[in-house]
Amino acid sequence: MTKKTNAAILIIGNEILSGRTQDTNTSTLSLWLNSIGIRVQEVRIIPDIEDTIVNSVNSLRKIYDYVFTTGGIGPTHDDITAQSIAKAFNLDYEIHKEGYKILEKYYKPGEFNEGRQKMIWMPKNAKLLLNPTSGAPGFSVENVFCLPGVPSILKSMLGGLKNDIVGGEPILSHTINLRTVESEIANSLTKVQDNNKDVEIGSYPFFQAGKLGVSIVIRSENQNKIDNCSSQILDFVKEKKIEIVSKN
Amino acid sequence: MTKKTNAAILIIGNEILSGRTQDTNTSTLSLWLNSIGIRVQEVRIIPDIEDTIVNSVNSLRKIYDYVFTTGGIGPTHDDITAQSIAKAFNLDYEIHKEGYKILEKYYKPGEFNEGRQKMIWMPKNAKLLLNPTSGAPGFSVENVFCLPGVPSILKSMLGGLKNDIVGGEPILSHTINLRTVESEIANSLTKVQDNNKDVEIGSYPFFQAGKLGVSIVIRSENQNKIDNCSSQILDFVKEKKIEIVSKN
Repeated sequence: MTKKTNAAILIIGNEILSGRTQDTNTSTLSLWLNSIGIRVQEVRIIPDIEDTIVNSVNSLRKIYDYVFTTGGIGPTHDDITAQSIAKAFNLDYEIHKEGYKILEKYYKPGEFNEGRQKMIWMPKNAKLLLNPTSGAPGFSVENVFCLPGVPSILKSMLGGLKNDIVGGEPILSHTINLRTVESEIANSLTKVQDNNKDVEIGSYPFFQAGKLGVSIVIRSENQNKIDNCSSQILDFVKEKKIEIVSKN
Repeated sequence: MTKKTNAAILIIGNEILSGRTQDTNTSTLSLWLNSIGIRVQEVRIIPDIEDTIVNSVNSLRKIYDYVFTTGGIGPTHDDITAQSIAKAFNLDYEIHKEGYKILEKYYKPGEFNEGRQKMIWMPKNAKLLLNPTSGAPGFSVENVFCLPGVPSILKSMLGGLKNDIVGGEPILSHTINLRTVESEIANSLTKVQDNNKDVEIGSYPFFQAGKLGVSIVIRSENQNKIDNCSSQILDFVKEKKIEIVSKN
């Protein structure tokens, strides 16, 4: 398989858009993807509306190597991800035989009711993504991977995805926390960025224990480039007599 | 002004996409917008890349009544929101005279350095959005409102936005927390949703103190419709002898 190194995340759910629920899956997925050499380039959060899901999936899957959806694969009326993915790929939406067997074993006799059976209605020939926490599998079609919205369940499924996903070099990062304000270092940092165009340098103000500070985050697949960039930053930090709070 | 009732949020920042920083501004903005009768229909999280910002803003501002951007209006090299918005609207990018005066007063003599002056480079004739926390204003151009990424500063600016934004009826919600699992109530809930098509009913599993439960969230601008829907849900809950954990 050739290396595929970028991805989009599609968060499906009214509860995130209404502000009721704080999404944490973006951060979980992004950190994990970075560790296997895939950069998340875009996240979209959309409502439980079939047309919106279909259009978003069809747009993102053509732009990015991978698309990860979260949410909408449970048993209730507002769970419409599987039927929408079927529509997006123009596939039949039907009972997944292998999935059926998994849930039939998972539940006690008599407990595999109609509501639960909805969870194994999937696009025809979808590939199952196993769920070690609560039985009901996710699934993938081509480069689109559909995961549940419940954060603990999603986390437990990532290990099982490794064989389906080929990334690049892990994306490394180094953070330097300084006791300063951004405007004090802005010009010097711009020069370092200009001298290191293929390294990503971010600057983020923070408040901690009542004091202002700035985190400088350096990201690259190449440790030497990070070290190089870091030493150029530490040069101007020393020159300006700025206190280093921590490095990691 | 005519009522405008939908919005998109555009979160600009590599730190969110990398998973390093957990976005909380979506939830803050969505809850606040709901309270003034505006529904967030889409959120996009994108990197600090000019073309991506320009294209996203130009696409979203045509679809939605309002677009709120967060992030990228600070003093460092990775803060490129203002120049990108200028480009999106084909406006000059220049020092905002009123903004300049505000920051000149805000900082002590000699402290209004080049880095800080970058924060008042804006699209020509942008409207300032006052920042009671840290001086540097946000701005709006037509229906696009550009806010900072630091959550505490963003929060402090919302009150000042009220005069610029005309929404609809506040969006009300009622939550019923049940000691059950989703598959137990899925069919009954589907019937209630079918009977109440203009009310938004969401179902969300939760784990609390080691026990499973389901939150049913009913949303509408109309309290009567919510009450009606709620009583239909409580009917099947009673019939099924499901324990009600709480309502709010």
